[in-house]
This record gives sequence, C-alpha cells and structure tokens, in this order.
Amino acid sequence: MASQPPPFPSNQSFVHLDYKLPSPSSSTTTSSAAAESSTTTSPNTLSLKTCCFTNPSFPYLSVRMKTEFPSNSSFLPPIPGMHCVVSLFHSLTGVPLASLDGTSLAYLRLSALSGLASDLLSLPSSTTLLIIGSCEYAHLVTAHRTARPSINRIIVYNPNFSKAQDFVCELCLREPESSTVIFDYAKDLDQVIGMADIVCCAAYRTTNVPIVKGKLLKAGAHLDLVGSLTYEMKECDDDVFSRGRAFVEEIAMNEAEKFVDFAGTLTELAGGKMQGRKTYDDVTLFKAVGSARFDLLVAQFAYESHIKLSNFALV
Amino acid sequence: MASQPPPFPSNQSFVHLDYKLPSPSSSTTTSSAAAESSTTTSPNTLSLKTCCFTNPSFPYLSVRMKTEFPSNSSFLPPIPGMHCVVSLFHSLTGVPLASLDGTSLAYLRLSALSGLASDLLSLPSSTTLLIIGSCEYAHLVTAHRTARPSINRIIVYNPNFSKAQDFVCELCLREPESSTVIFDYAKDLDQVIGMADIVCCAAYRTTNVPIVKGKLLKAGAHLDLVGSLTYEMKECDDDVFSRGRAFVEEIAMNEAEKFVDFAGTLTELAGGKMQGRKTYDDVTLFKAVGSARFDLLVAQFAYESHIKLSNFALV
Repeated sequence: MASQPPPFPSNQSFVHLDYKLPSPSSSTTTSSAAAESSTTTSPNTLSLKTCCFTNPSFPYLSVRMKTEFPSNSSFLPPIPGMHCVVSLFHSLTGVPLASLDGTSLAYLRLSALSGLASDLLSLPSSTTLLIIGSCEYAHLVTAHRTARPSINRIIVYNPNFSKAQDFVCELCLREPESSTVIFDYAKDLDQVIGMADIVCCAAYRTTNVPIVKGKLLKAGAHLDLVGSLTYEMKECDDDVFSRGRAFVEEIAMNEAEKFVDFAGTLTELAGGKMQGRKTYDDVTLFKAVGSARFDLLVAQFAYESHIKLSNFALV
Repeated sequence: MASQPPPFPSNQSFVHLDYKLPSPSSSTTTSSAAAESSTTTSPNTLSLKTCCFTNPSFPYLSVRMKTEFPSNSSFLPPIPGMHCVVSLFHSLTGVPLASLDGTSLAYLRLSALSGLASDLLSLPSSTTLLIIGSCEYAHLVTAHRTARPSINRIIVYNPNFSKAQDFVCELCLREPESSTVIFDYAKDLDQVIGMADIVCCAAYRTTNVPIVKGKLLKAGAHLDLVGSLTYEMKECDDDVFSRGRAFVEEIAMNEAEKFVDFAGTLTELAGGKMQGRKTYDDVTLFKAVGSARFDLLVAQFAYESHIKLSNFALV
C-alpha cells in the first residue's frame, strides 16, 4: 500500500502504473491451468493509465485498466492474454459517464491514426497494400483503403501461414461482389515487400530482430508500424530511417531521446508544422506508440457518438 | 508519469492511490461553476483502490475509482460531490466481468456490516433505534431492523432539522400499513441519545468535535459508527471506549497503532475468536473503516447475484 500517494504532475495530466499481480500459486489451491503454468511464464500484470483534460470542449477523465495474463494460452480453449476496460468520467464534475471495451477502442484508435498518417504520407498513387499481421487487424485494411481508395491489391503475410490464409478468406468474405480488388497471401516476406506501396506492420515483436528490412522497400513506399509499442521492440531496421521521413504518434517526455530518428509527430504533421514526404522516392514511416492523449480522444469519440445515437433513437 | 511503477506488495493484494486532479482554472476557459469555485475549495481528487484475491473460490480483481469534487455543490441544481465506479475482473484470467456502481455497493456494504455487527453486539431486547444522519441511509435502518426485529421505535436526528423531517417522511411512506413502529425526529441529540438501545451514526465529520458523548449513552447500548472513515474524524468521544467493548471492521497494517482502543475486528468477533458483549450493561461499538477486502466481497455478491438472476431469466 502506497503511503505517499503521488499527485498528478502539475505539467501533465496523466499517470501510468504497472502492477505485478499476486500469483495464483500462492493460494492454497493450485489446481487451475493458470496456476500450473504461472511458474514458467511471465507474471500476470495490471496496468492503470489515467488521463485528464479539463478544457470545457474536452472535459474528460479516463482510467484505463489493462490486464495481461501470459498463461491464458494454456487454457482449453485458449483465452486472450490481454483485456482492457476504460472508465470515462466528466472531468469538471467527476460524474461517471461510461465503461468502454478498451480492446475495441484500441482498434478504433489504431485505425484512425494509421489512416490519417497514410493520408498524409503515402503516395496518392498507391495501389498495393501489404499487411504483416493476423486477422485481428481487418480494421487497418479499411483504414488504409479509406485513405487510398486507389488500392487494388492486398497481400497478407504472417509467419504462421495458415493465419494469413484465414485472414485473406475473412477479407474476401467481407468484400462486395462488385469489387475488383485482388487478395493474396505470401510465404516469404522479403520476396513481396518490394511490391508494396504501403506496408502495414501490425505484428508484435518478442525478439529484437527487425521484421522489415529497409533496403527491400520500394521507392516511395509508406511504412505503417502499429504493432510493438516500445522503441526496443523494433519492427524495422535502421535502413528505413536513412531513406526518408519518419513520424511518431507522440513523443513521451521520458522517451524523447530514443526517438532521435524521427522528423516529428503526427500532430505536427497534421497541423502543417512539419513537411511530410519531400520527394516521390522518399520512404515514409509512421510509428504508433499508444499515447494516453489519443486513448482519451477515441474514448470521447465513442462516447459522444453513442450519446448522439441514443438521443436520435429517443426522438 | 511514474517511471518506476510499484509492484503489488508481496504480502498484500491491494494498492491505494490518491491523485489531485488538474484544476479547470489552468485551462484557457474558466466560465464553468466548477472553475470559478475551484480556487476557494479543496482540490478535486481521483482515488484508485485495487484489490486482488486468487483463491479459486474468490477469484476476483477489482479496481475502485472514486472521484471527489467538493465544488459540485455550487452547480445549480447541485451535483453529488462523490462518485464511485468499480471494475471487476477475473483474477485467474484477467477477463473483465462487470462495471458496478460503487456508490450502491458502498450502501450494500455498510448495511451488511452494520447489520452483522448489530446482530453480534446489540442487546436482543433492543427496541429503540436512533439514526444520526440523512436520507441517504435508509438501508441502515433496514439492516438494524433485520438484526433486531424487536425494534419498534425509530428516532432520526440531523443537525439540519428539515432533513430529519424529510427522512422520517420517507421512512413512513415505505412502511406497510399494518406496521406499529413509531417514527420520530429529534431537535436535540443529547436529549434523545439516552433513550436508544442502538445508535447508528452515519454522519460525516468535518471537524474533530465528537458527535456522540459516551456518558449519555444508555447502559447496554450498541453504537454503530459508519460515517467518517478515518480515525482522526472521530464520531464519538473516549468515554464510549471506557464503558465496554469496541470492534472495528478491519485493521489496516499502517493504521493498527491508532486502533489501540479496539477489542478486535468484526472478523474475529463473527468467527468466535473474540467475545463481544461481556455484561448486560456494556456499551458496544462497531466502527466501519472501508476496507478493500469487504469492498471486493460485496462486489462479488452483487456480481454473482446478477449472474444467477440472468441465468434464471434465461431458463
């Protein structure tokens, strides 16, 4: 129990705390699957992230609760290892407003940021989209296609080949009959990466071996990195940075020095304070980092949309 | 932002953190009522309380989020100054289970603990119940009447006389026509306190002047203190302790030394490890302190009751 609770820092409005949860093996009964595997895997964690803005046009306070239970995969059937809930309050009154599914919010958030970055950075003539990741990322396909309706070929790569096949099947099923978009999957990433105008990397790194080799990218390609959220879990090698312009979602104060390779933030880019692509051949890059500010913006959007729909239903 | 997140202490399963929220006056627009009064009142706060048990029969993790906005009373109409939400997760999988109204849970919790303590400590022959507090505490009347069905007179005292009247009206309206219970309100606490077999003090102290004077209590009376949650905000004077046996809901590790006047905890009393009343004339006392363990127990009860009712509705 913390005897000296830390106040909100005066110049920031958010706090992030991670807790290692007590292990089930410390209880008297250890018969569950989680208890049995807890000695061999990473600890279960609870992460609390609070964010508060008091501007009357954005009067929200959020508490984001994320649980990570690595041993969930040992259950039969497996249970997702990560869960997230966001509680939203009015920041001028403290009144509770909503409890939102944080996982869905994260999907919305990633789609919005990737779509915006794609619109600002990728070549308007882009036709081929390569997705590195699995079937949880269909919303990212929609985001890039919304930014670049010229996309007419979508290639899926996943180290687990059957997952790539499943994802392509899922995308095909969603496609209207009149569509002329070609869907494909690849067994070798290095062979197809040079074909793509937009490469969306939605994979989580567990090692520090980069997924994307910069020298293989097509001239003018846009690279969208939305997977791993820390700088250490690099999704691409340093060659990418030497070939053009890289932007990051937002730079956290204590991580700023790590992001020396970035030209600026998405906010600076969208606000016209930074130039994006300088030449047709520039490789552009966008890196999502999971900032609390955008978490709250998307929660606001979901909440206010829900309220508008509810009011509409009542009329 | 905390750079070194504290882990859950190994010997405890709960963490309590209080944050001072950023003031609305720091934003560019200061037209709201809250902003105007924020300079003269206490700061707005967010309190986070997490509790985790991993026993398979009690596999719950809770995050309790409480907002306190003292300036809410300046809104027209006034907004309650305190709000609370509890998010419940499965502690063996991290799966989100429910988002519960923490204020309702607090009422349930107080009723359950007060009723149990009354059952264990008050005289079985108790007939007169005195309630010190306002109309938010009707559930406490029910709790004491459930423990002692012999109660046939209920007196309400509130420093704000009209609130006492309103509460009595509310209680009368709820009473079945066949009831022979007499309801009354008092203008002077010291004049009526000696009549009561059970005194339930549900008032929040803002000064350190005790509400209940121990020497005025009837011999054999039971005193139920459920208002102020810290030891400093004393609801009764020290004379109470010299007249009998006092029990506390639970003793927090870092507050143990403050509770030297207590004979034991409610858990020890209910488990038969401590004797309650020793003589007919003993004054008994129960002090609720808002422990995280009981917070989680009542959340479990509400959640499991809801699940049972939902399953029943489906059959």
